[in-house]
Amino acid sequence: MKVNGKEYRSLWFDPDFPDRIFVIDQQRLPFSFLITELTSADDVFLAIRNMVVRGAPVIGAAAAWGLYLASMAMNSGKSVTGQLQQVADYLAKARPTAVNLKFALTFQINRISRNMSAGEITAQLKTGARIYSGQEVEACRSIGMSGLPIIQKAAEGKMGQSVNILTHCNAGWLACIDYGTALAPVYLAAEKGIPVHVWVDETRPRNQGALLTMWELQKAGIPCTLIADNTGGHLMQHGMVDLVLVGSDRTTRTGDVANKIGTYLKALAALDNRIPFYVALPSSTIDFDISDGIKDIPVEERSPEEVLSIRGLSGKEDISVRIAPENARAANYGFDVTPARLVTGLITERGICEASEKGLKSLFPDLMK
Amino acid sequence: MKVNGKEYRSLWFDPDFPDRIFVIDQQRLPFSFLITELTSADDVFLAIRNMVVRGAPVIGAAAAWGLYLASMAMNSGKSVTGQLQQVADYLAKARPTAVNLKFALTFQINRISRNMSAGEITAQLKTGARIYSGQEVEACRSIGMSGLPIIQKAAEGKMGQSVNILTHCNAGWLACIDYGTALAPVYLAAEKGIPVHVWVDETRPRNQGALLTMWELQKAGIPCTLIADNTGGHLMQHGMVDLVLVGSDRTTRTGDVANKIGTYLKALAALDNRIPFYVALPSSTIDFDISDGIKDIPVEERSPEEVLSIRGLSGKEDISVRIAPENARAANYGFDVTPARLVTGLITERGICEASEKGLKSLFPDLMK
Repeated sequence: MKVNGKEYRSLWFDPDFPDRIFVIDQQRLPFSFLITELTSADDVFLAIRNMVVRGAPVIGAAAAWGLYLASMAMNSGKSVTGQLQQVADYLAKARPTAVNLKFALTFQINRISRNMSAGEITAQLKTGARIYSGQEVEACRSIGMSGLPIIQKAAEGKMGQSVNILTHCNAGWLACIDYGTALAPVYLAAEKGIPVHVWVDETRPRNQGALLTMWELQKAGIPCTLIADNTGGHLMQHGMVDLVLVGSDRTTRTGDVANKIGTYLKALAALDNRIPFYVALPSSTIDFDISDGIKDIPVEERSPEEVLSIRGLSGKEDISVRIAPENARAANYGFDVTPARLVTGLITERGICEASEKGLKSLFPDLMK
Repeated sequence: MKVNGKEYRSLWFDPDFPDRIFVIDQQRLPFSFLITELTSADDVFLAIRNMVVRGAPVIGAAAAWGLYLASMAMNSGKSVTGQLQQVADYLAKARPTAVNLKFALTFQINRISRNMSAGEITAQLKTGARIYSGQEVEACRSIGMSGLPIIQKAAEGKMGQSVNILTHCNAGWLACIDYGTALAPVYLAAEKGIPVHVWVDETRPRNQGALLTMWELQKAGIPCTLIADNTGGHLMQHGMVDLVLVGSDRTTRTGDVANKIGTYLKALAALDNRIPFYVALPSSTIDFDISDGIKDIPVEERSPEEVLSIRGLSGKEDISVRIAPENARAANYGFDVTPARLVTGLITERGICEASEKGLKSLFPDLMK
């Protein structure tokens, strides 16, 4: 996607600098647009943990590249594959909820074997990371195509007025290398001249909506309005939302969806007001091994500091301010699980399906064990 | 309630200073504890509008005192009652959603008549404001007594473990002169030695939960944990909430409840997880004239700046930081309406009733027309 007229991805590899990958520093947006270079598995681990790189699809890609970077630093005297397995186990722990991390790392580990030389392994991992990243970009492009008819249909009833779409967190191109998941159909609809307007949940505590989604949509020239996370229910009660579109960090084989904390509350409000609630996701985020999202998806607990303070601009300074009394205790759960019964449909790279085992099987018979 | 060992109310009158009322400046808490003096109806209007004084019960009391202050500045040459009616109309517009404003002003206007002298009118309004404030304090104390058995009952199932209560915004003594509405039963339970723990929604955009409720509960020594507004649903799904207790800014005769934006989302989650959802309110917040909360309760739209920026402490400085990109647009609805069907019960100064016309009639046959 374009930033100030230049095409960017949220993560990329440049063959002229084979010892590093480049990422947009999502911790500094929207107040600064900075590119950061990651040169080791440690760099990648910290970038994921600290949310310099965030969003399920792109953290998978970052991890895939992380193994490649690690392979170049391997002592070829020891078992390179054994060492890389250890690195993979380490990277998998950077964030627990998104399943892409595990998926991307398994994809990479499966490409290498003990009988390869260190050089062959590095070459394999480079190709693997390229393929993996390319697949994620393609998946997002396809998700956009899959989801577009939903917006087109909503537009039919609007007599030329904007389709009002509510989204939570950031499931745009920053989260996904390019295009995005939930925002991919929105970008495509806007391209096709369908008038759209996006209600953007600020998404406390990290405010990815206020900081990242607003930035993305403003850069793309798409009308958008920031709201407190508390506001969506009221808007839905008053006919001001036509459609809810969110992403997913992990989806069970039964269609339960783990996404940024607060998603569940919007799904409840959508159902209560008979508003379609769609979840857009690449198949890399489906965990075919689990069936009960609430019981089985690990929900990350992050630092209470993220609740007790907030980042913002004071004059031109990007600072953090404390928003609670001294000695206040806080809890910080990163995700919640929206049960499949609240989901109108899953928008995937292979089309739309019901949020159920049957629905997912119809689109992914090859992946469903 | 006590602050640093001294007994305070959020608003009071001191006969030694009959030309003013005193309020705790709720815009400066919790970082500074400041008392502000209001000496005119204009002062009162601005204090309510700018949320120096906020919370349905206390803004009613402030308005009642505002008329008294105005009466002292009246030109007795003109019709004093006519002038005071104009002041009442003006004060009623300070905030549109809470019905107490109107209620308190009508209470005062009904006390005066054209055949009174200016001095008699002032005396009537002083007595009226005292009675009104006293009634609100008494109502809150009684709400505490009414609600206590709910917490006692919840405690029975907890085998000595804390009863986990989730609350939204601030419905404590700051909002209510003394005791509070939703927090009154909590304070009483704690006094009686029932172990309680409160999950406090931060309550964006103005963060009354993070700033005021946390401060109140910490001062009272009640265990409390701050959470992002997005978090309640997840906690409820995982059995971490036993009870939801919130206040109300206006309740219809049918039991629909207007309260701080985001309350509706918590009510939906409570129902989905079979958790009791109670609303605590003095009868002064019941609007017996309207039946459909979503259609008929005016919801205040406040400045987008409250969404685009946030107040916090930088070092020792109480400042505001911008949390969205330049030129971001925002919408800021102050309240939402929770339909009666989602409310387990209304806790009032006369006991608990079903959130319905029948329920309210059983407790308030004298007020229901």
